[in-house]
Amino acid sequence: MRQILQMRQALERGASAPKSSVWRDFARTRARTLSLTETLEMDDFVVQTAPYMSPPKWHLGHVSWLFEVIMSRIDGRYRFYSEEFSAYLNSYYNQFGEPRQKAKRGIVSRPTLSQILDYYSEVNRRMEEFLAQNSIGGDDVKLLEMGMHHECQHQELLVYDLQHLLADLYAPPKRDSPPPRGEAAPAMLPVEGGMYRLGYGGDRFCYDIEMPEHDTYTDAYSIGRFPVTNGEYVKFVEDGGYSRFVHWLSDGWKAVQENGWDAPMYWERVDGAWHTRDFRGLRPLDPAEPVVHVSFYEADAYAKWAGMRLPTEAEWEKAACHNPDSDAKTTFPWGDGEPDASRCNLLESNLWGCSRAGSYPAGRSRYGCEQMIGDVWEWTSSEFVGYRGFKSAFQEYNDKWFTGQKVLRGGSFGTPSASIRGSYRNFFRLDERWMFSGFRLAS
Amino acid sequence: MRQILQMRQALERGASAPKSSVWRDFARTRARTLSLTETLEMDDFVVQTAPYMSPPKWHLGHVSWLFEVIMSRIDGRYRFYSEEFSAYLNSYYNQFGEPRQKAKRGIVSRPTLSQILDYYSEVNRRMEEFLAQNSIGGDDVKLLEMGMHHECQHQELLVYDLQHLLADLYAPPKRDSPPPRGEAAPAMLPVEGGMYRLGYGGDRFCYDIEMPEHDTYTDAYSIGRFPVTNGEYVKFVEDGGYSRFVHWLSDGWKAVQENGWDAPMYWERVDGAWHTRDFRGLRPLDPAEPVVHVSFYEADAYAKWAGMRLPTEAEWEKAACHNPDSDAKTTFPWGDGEPDASRCNLLESNLWGCSRAGSYPAGRSRYGCEQMIGDVWEWTSSEFVGYRGFKSAFQEYNDKWFTGQKVLRGGSFGTPSASIRGSYRNFFRLDERWMFSGFRLAS
Amino acid sequence: MRQILQMRQALERGASAPKSSVWRDFARTRARTLSLTETLEMDDFVVQTAPYMSPPKWHLGHVSWLFEVIMSRIDGRYRFYSEEFSAYLNSYYNQFGEPRQKAKRGIVSRPTLSQILDYYSEVNRRMEEFLAQNSIGGDDVKLLEMGMHHECQHQELLVYDLQHLLADLYAPPKRDSPPPRGEAAPAMLPVEGGMYRLGYGGDRFCYDIEMPEHDTYTDAYSIGRFPVTNGEYVKFVEDGGYSRFVHWLSDGWKAVQENGWDAPMYWERVDGAWHTRDFRGLRPLDPAEPVVHVSFYEADAYAKWAGMRLPTEAEWEKAACHNPDSDAKTTFPWGDGEPDASRCNLLESNLWGCSRAGSYPAGRSRYGCEQMIGDVWEWTSSEFVGYRGFKSAFQEYNDKWFTGQKVLRGGSFGTPSASIRGSYRNFFRLDERWMFSGFRLAS
Amino acid sequence: MRQILQMRQALERGASAPKSSVWRDFARTRARTLSLTETLEMDDFVVQTAPYMSPPKWHLGHVSWLFEVIMSRIDGRYRFYSEEFSAYLNSYYNQFGEPRQKAKRGIVSRPTLSQILDYYSEVNRRMEEFLAQNSIGGDDVKLLEMGMHHECQHQELLVYDLQHLLADLYAPPKRDSPPPRGEAAPAMLPVEGGMYRLGYGGDRFCYDIEMPEHDTYTDAYSIGRFPVTNGEYVKFVEDGGYSRFVHWLSDGWKAVQENGWDAPMYWERVDGAWHTRDFRGLRPLDPAEPVVHVSFYEADAYAKWAGMRLPTEAEWEKAACHNPDSDAKTTFPWGDGEPDASRCNLLESNLWGCSRAGSYPAGRSRYGCEQMIGDVWEWTSSEFVGYRGFKSAFQEYNDKWFTGQKVLRGGSFGTPSASIRGSYRNFFRLDERWMFSGFRLAS
Repeated sequence: MRQILQMRQALERGASAPKSSVWRDFARTRARTLSLTETLEMDDFVVQTAPYMSPPKWHLGHVSWLFEVIMSRIDGRYRFYSEEFSAYLNSYYNQFGEPRQKAKRGIVSRPTLSQILDYYSEVNRRMEEFLAQNSIGGDDVKLLEMGMHHECQHQELLVYDLQHLLADLYAPPKRDSPPPRGEAAPAMLPVEGGMYRLGYGGDRFCYDIEMPEHDTYTDAYSIGRFPVTNGEYVKFVEDGGYSRFVHWLSDGWKAVQENGWDAPMYWERVDGAWHTRDFRGLRPLDPAEPVVHVSFYEADAYAKWAGMRLPTEAEWEKAACHNPDSDAKTTFPWGDGEPDASRCNLLESNLWGCSRAGSYPAGRSRYGCEQMIGDVWEWTSSEFVGYRGFKSAFQEYNDKWFTGQKVLRGGSFGTPSASIRGSYRNFFRLDERWMFSGFRLAS
Repeated sequence: MRQILQMRQALERGASAPKSSVWRDFARTRARTLSLTETLEMDDFVVQTAPYMSPPKWHLGHVSWLFEVIMSRIDGRYRFYSEEFSAYLNSYYNQFGEPRQKAKRGIVSRPTLSQILDYYSEVNRRMEEFLAQNSIGGDDVKLLEMGMHHECQHQELLVYDLQHLLADLYAPPKRDSPPPRGEAAPAMLPVEGGMYRLGYGGDRFCYDIEMPEHDTYTDAYSIGRFPVTNGEYVKFVEDGGYSRFVHWLSDGWKAVQENGWDAPMYWERVDGAWHTRDFRGLRPLDPAEPVVHVSFYEADAYAKWAGMRLPTEAEWEKAACHNPDSDAKTTFPWGDGEPDASRCNLLESNLWGCSRAGSYPAGRSRYGCEQMIGDVWEWTSSEFVGYRGFKSAFQEYNDKWFTGQKVLRGGSFGTPSASIRGSYRNFFRLDERWMFSGFRLAS
Repeated sequence: MRQILQMRQALERGASAPKSSVWRDFARTRARTLSLTETLEMDDFVVQTAPYMSPPKWHLGHVSWLFEVIMSRIDGRYRFYSEEFSAYLNSYYNQFGEPRQKAKRGIVSRPTLSQILDYYSEVNRRMEEFLAQNSIGGDDVKLLEMGMHHECQHQELLVYDLQHLLADLYAPPKRDSPPPRGEAAPAMLPVEGGMYRLGYGGDRFCYDIEMPEHDTYTDAYSIGRFPVTNGEYVKFVEDGGYSRFVHWLSDGWKAVQENGWDAPMYWERVDGAWHTRDFRGLRPLDPAEPVVHVSFYEADAYAKWAGMRLPTEAEWEKAACHNPDSDAKTTFPWGDGEPDASRCNLLESNLWGCSRAGSYPAGRSRYGCEQMIGDVWEWTSSEFVGYRGFKSAFQEYNDKWFTGQKVLRGGSFGTPSASIRGSYRNFFRLDERWMFSGFRLAS
Repeated sequence: MRQILQMRQALERGASAPKSSVWRDFARTRARTLSLTETLEMDDFVVQTAPYMSPPKWHLGHVSWLFEVIMSRIDGRYRFYSEEFSAYLNSYYNQFGEPRQKAKRGIVSRPTLSQILDYYSEVNRRMEEFLAQNSIGGDDVKLLEMGMHHECQHQELLVYDLQHLLADLYAPPKRDSPPPRGEAAPAMLPVEGGMYRLGYGGDRFCYDIEMPEHDTYTDAYSIGRFPVTNGEYVKFVEDGGYSRFVHWLSDGWKAVQENGWDAPMYWERVDGAWHTRDFRGLRPLDPAEPVVHVSFYEADAYAKWAGMRLPTEAEWEKAACHNPDSDAKTTFPWGDGEPDASRCNLLESNLWGCSRAGSYPAGRSRYGCEQMIGDVWEWTSSEFVGYRGFKSAFQEYNDKWFTGQKVLRGGSFGTPSASIRGSYRNFFRLDERWMFSGFRLAS
């Protein structure tokens, strides 16, 4: 849509001659959100395809509204754009009034897309003015950064929605061919036992749930060099994995039966051969790509079938970030600076889809693990709860979810590079599989 | 929307210089459908607000698709526009493949509105060509007429949807002020007993369920001069009508409790006073208007509370159409020709809403009943089943619904004048109240 | 159980030397209830097998409690046995407090069976005393008769429960062999059109819903000599009747799919051959017996498949009770006195199961119909509503059910002879089939 | 019931002159199960009051059936008593065929109680014979012990069922008055940080989930001297704890709203004052007793409200069992031998109900914690998963439940003394509260 294209270009001009680094980061984040929706039809913005999804126009409004909330926190005199918009755009924050039921986001037609786009622009304008008129520092910067990372999270959710709504109909703005690497032999890599300081200890932005950095103890263990691939996973499927209860947790077996699962989400059997459907269309299963769109239960069942287990999040992070020769952690497995496109697959730099195992040898961790960031989120066996000594920094943001979910680590090809780091903790219910979720084995 | 306006004008030009009466009726019907949607926003076309509603763009496509079905019935060589469209636009006809679940019509974004409008125009073009190339007669005319009456039904459904989605936000293309008549005293009018020939016996279009005309016997009875008004109904509400089981059928009492009903749909209590919300906005209850948006259960409970009962459909039709002085029936209560705007309130001639009781004294029946057509559908006590000797004329159209529904008679302000007559049988489930449903008493 | 046997014998002794005809009828009714439960195990009394069933001990208590209600209506000073028992034993009468949810009758263990049996005896004792001390007449007799007929209804419900709970495990107190008649050729018998006075016009007990006797008009019609048999019905099954939507009403097709129906209830396919399971055990389908345990939807679908229809209740009653040569109606098809075991199959005189078509030629009606009473309840096409001029005689007893049900006529082998007559109107929801329900064709 | 009494006495005679220690333990365990049901009415054995409960007769059969399973594992020639019984008595073991749905255990009446009691006796007889004819040792002894501990678990479940079914109606065989101690001041006790070996390291029976003993690291922490009492908890209730979302996890707040919770289970407000209903009848809340029948969500919300948190299971066990002055763990907080009635409240020795905080000063742990065993199960913040290095010992017994549950530690007054120890891990879903569940704070 032309209007969105123009809005994005305006933001990019603003970002290239920034008034402040906060403004530059803000403008870049906002521009990236718009870029994801430029090729959509108007109708696509209005529809919600499943209770756990949201209409794309709602995402655009919601992330804008959170910046209004932040401005009102910094300056109590801030006046919201519209009470009606606020009511529609609140997601699950009880403190701002009774939230709308998520499964009903798609059954109102107003505000219209056109009004939401106006609103999106207006919030940009207000933020520009707000930054110009106030001297922002300390905790306020943190709050604004949180708003940007929140928008990054919704960029990824938007990609999930687009795949669910459109998959092969959607024409992403950019689609490179995958790096030219073949399948790599699976291997387990050893990690020594001992104490490890889990969590984020740096001085840049992170969420409250990544802190405090604290001591944990692990025994020696092995961990997979790559995520489990389609080629490996399909053996489990063909071996009757989905029809024998012995591999499954009781809750998992129930999920298999109630949902009629017989393969990962988006797998289809065409003329007897397994295919997958994603932004590259319906195509034969590539055995070298990581398996994706599996629930925790499936990851766990596969691991049991294979005589292995899933890693804890401490084991995952140690394998990704620990430097046995030094006290310093590696923020990213591939180094300490910005993500580097030669070392991982993230949406803005590479594919709209997974890369084959072995595509980024330069991105390996000190223990030799590859593709820990940028292909698939990896299920761990750890329940999502606060770290020892956890202090909530944002009311109702993360800690209200401390039950019934498992931690995923890594980051997928749909994750914005600005929002990922080695200590990042994602979390989902054990039966969810609409996100780009895979896993790596441990033993 | 400009595109819709232009499409309508093109049809109206076609209708004014008709190639045939079938083409003229077709073009008028299609133009009227478009006129209902001209003031909508694009987003409004995409959304389905409740499981029993449909997205407006679906209505536009569905009525067009039925004309494709009819052309294919008349000429077996007819090629459908698109298999994908047919799959999306089938409603509940098993014979054309597994119908989509109605409650899920709103969760796909494609075909887009733009594509549906193209399709709507293309079906117009094809029909024009079809009529020009084929000499149509006899049963084929009947089929085409059925297609137009089917579109009329969806025009009314569309008005229900628009009220549910937008109510006071929607700007109808035309909104006259109501006729200047005050509240009329309620009265019961006597009708003598004896045999009455129920059903349609004329030679114009009617549905199969209105036939055959057949003998029925009724005792003498009385029937209300007007539909029950808000002013009368509110007394039932204020008398605790919704909180005492004694007035209710067992199924009705269950519906009250499960749905938390305490008044008709669209009633709201504002500062202690009852208001209604409709196309005229939120406004204080007008005691002289017929009560509307009540279920069968509420109509029955009110009648029991008032020491009366609902009429059977034979009683209703006799009071509306019988001429004690002649063998001939009155097709419309107000005469035998076309509906006349001075005698009833129908959408294209008058209000987007009900008229006060007593507004159309010229439209009274031979027994003195007023407003039998054009304000509210009136619940009868009759189960919706086939008449004695019923023969199905359209497979899966009406007779598959011969259980669990009650007959409503009359026609509402939202009913197109071209599709209404005294023998018309509408039918809904006993707990439905999203249509313009009221009732009249008998004893 | 010995205790029940003794209780029954005490009642029978009382009935044989009656103090009054009311007492005699009461004692006989009560004795018959007990006779049905004599061979049960204690555990059987406590269990409720489905939401629409009740634990047998609840039936014993409930019918007793209703006599307490009646005594309290006649004499306001009457003191109930126990508030706690009343709360447990109320079924659906809102006037006596919030009724227990039927589906939860089986989840309390107290009152115990032993306490319920004591209560049953105590109500017998109180009634004996009550009748001795009060001179009962007029309306009070009617009320007491209603209590006995109510207990007769529960006797039949108890038989349904026993079949559902135990079927072939249950040893009925008496089981004769069926009368020695073979299969009879199906035939349709003609009935002339005209007016018929529908309903009960006699001076013995009947329910309010059988009155008033009133004029109805029917065209000439034909009606089946016998109920449809298993042999006829199985052809519909084998012809794919349950897998083709064209035979079914929309609601019926939904019921087929949701419940996975592929044959009547209690049919089982064993080694490729259809069997039925009832009090005579699991046995091959007898083609000469009436089909039983079908819902209204199945009866209607069969009729449509066979090119016929179901009779209205007026057509059924006329065929059963009208005497073309006289003004007098036949109360029972087989004469006007008490039912006669050579003319019909009722539980206390004959089988615990259906009789073959043609077994009771002496019981034919004036139009030649056989087995209209005493084998299966027969679905009619009539909605269960009040007759024209209906007046409610017992609050909340029958008329609260005037929606969503169809009338069944006849009476089954499980119906007590004391409670059946030609005008009797039974009623069930359209998807119910746990009672002994079959049907007869009309055209 | 006399029959049960006699069965129990026979077992006790057998146990007092044992043929082997295995037989003695078996006979004692079985006798204790019977003692719990001696005062029931027959009807009580048949009813299932909630989907998560079971009919008492089912428990009697199920625990017996498991001994049949064990005998068949030890000796492949073992012949089961009855296939039908096995089908009815399987709980959730897929390996023995499709398990019955738990919520439907109460809707069959056969096998009867009488048959189940015969079966119970017959399994006793067979076991006696089995032990006499086989020389049992090593793993086989472990299996038999597992069967006994399994029966102990069902003894406690039976107590939950009895409370839910009967509460104050049930007359327990023995009911002592509570020890004469008043309320004790709440206090937090310090525990130093460092490594702790979590799990069971002894040589007696324990479940597979208590092993292996393994190193864990904890920071220094404080833990409550007593479980949280009613007196403390009621302040949370009165402070609006159940109506303010800020205290609650998101899933917990949903549970509060969906279930309408406003206090712990079994609390009732009578004339404005909180009461509890248990085996001592309905009585005013005793502020000195531990709060019981709270879900994990309630425990967590209380802790958050109080500015504290729940302990991890490692923290709980260390506080209960660690001896800072020695390497040896304390199996029980009160010493290493058998539980001692002066040191804790367990069902067979003391109350059918909780004891006041401070009643067992002699049972304090080395860190000063009291009543860690024998009053209430205590929720911990730990997810129920296998310990590092876990190996499954019994297929489908424990490890299939490794999701969606939290660990509870301690043991309640309803726990048999033979089956409890400091390393015992109980587990329930986060919204369950029908067991005797309380909690202790940490910080």
